[in-house]
Amino acid sequence: MQVVDFYFDFSSTNSYFAAFMLPETCRRHDAIVNWIPLHLGALFRETGFDVMAMTPRKARYLWRDHQRYAKLTGLPFRRPRRFPIKTADALRGVIAAAHLSGAKCEAGADAARVGARVDLTCEAAAKYSQAVMRAYWERDENIADRAVLGAIAGSAGLERDGFMRVIDSQDVRDELKSITGHAAERGVFGAPMFFIGAEMFWGKDRLDFVEHWLTRR
Amino acid sequence: MQVVDFYFDFSSTNSYFAAFMLPETCRRHDAIVNWIPLHLGALFRETGFDVMAMTPRKARYLWRDHQRYAKLTGLPFRRPRRFPIKTADALRGVIAAAHLSGAKCEAGADAARVGARVDLTCEAAAKYSQAVMRAYWERDENIADRAVLGAIAGSAGLERDGFMRVIDSQDVRDELKSITGHAAERGVFGAPMFFIGAEMFWGKDRLDFVEHWLTRR
Repeated sequence: MQVVDFYFDFSSTNSYFAAFMLPETCRRHDAIVNWIPLHLGALFRETGFDVMAMTPRKARYLWRDHQRYAKLTGLPFRRPRRFPIKTADALRGVIAAAHLSGAKCEAGADAARVGARVDLTCEAAAKYSQAVMRAYWERDENIADRAVLGAIAGSAGLERDGFMRVIDSQDVRDELKSITGHAAERGVFGAPMFFIGAEMFWGKDRLDFVEHWLTRR
Repeated sequence: MQVVDFYFDFSSTNSYFAAFMLPETCRRHDAIVNWIPLHLGALFRETGFDVMAMTPRKARYLWRDHQRYAKLTGLPFRRPRRFPIKTADALRGVIAAAHLSGAKCEAGADAARVGARVDLTCEAAAKYSQAVMRAYWERDENIADRAVLGAIAGSAGLERDGFMRVIDSQDVRDELKSITGHAAERGVFGAPMFFIGAEMFWGKDRLDFVEHWLTRR
């Protein structure tokens, strides 16, 4: 079974699109998605990124482009009022969801390879991640608000109090740092980023390359 | 007949790919290409762009991505030794090629709309532009060297001495400035940029959108 490492941040518009399109791509080729939360803010601080490159005219264009893309894919994308937004709590939630679902990390599993201690290919990580993406990019919810986040976790089938406790734990904080550090070492500089083995692909516009790579092996 | 305004700079890798793929797209839909030279250096000075956004890790990735793309399209792309490169002379050559071929600018033509005084949908503009792209992105030639540029113009069927005289003329210098200024007013912030009417598309990865737009009208 081939695995696609999918690095995403909830604040990334293109990660939103990828979160729904990549699973379809993988399904077509009997591959699985490794849902890897990436703290983009921390990564940019470490690897360097100048947000000044986003001139107002480029930003205007990109929102228009996202609208066109949403129409093409049929995804009910809506530009959120809060953008950018803090996502550290929401990202730790992906790890928490996997822990709470009992997704064990076996020796040599894909988890260790990406700096995690828990199996992020599990259904709980997928379900929670898509739920947060929908809340932010479709229903304009404030995913930086912990009460909102708890409600989303509940809707994804997680026990709310336990969820809040786990995302606050030092272990899970360290785990997100470890994952983001591994990503930086691997060459990640943005999101969404996909890996098939050592081959790296950046952006939802490379899902066709991902599909091509899954086929040729 | 639909027209696609194609803004490009010879220093833009993605413009190279687009220069060969867009004509195919247009041919399929009975549309024509308006070959519009864009002085990216001047545009960035005016509209703001921070090249620091190109971190070494991102640059490394992009060259790899270009190689994969070349393989996919079959274009004989080779990473040039001189990059970035000065392109003002080469860009004025597109305008010169059109003037020398006698491509008249009629009232209300697409030329005036983009700030030009000559018809850039003409065969001479296409032929010269593709010749320069091939010289730089396939044969690693120094297109900032005026002797090299003269030879390329010659190979594209232009009379060499006349060509050199025209690219140096104040009129053609002003024309490139006018075109780049019009582009900035229109919202252009990079290359390749495509317009179908007022709808703007950025990057070779949007050729599918361009194709879709040509179909739906």
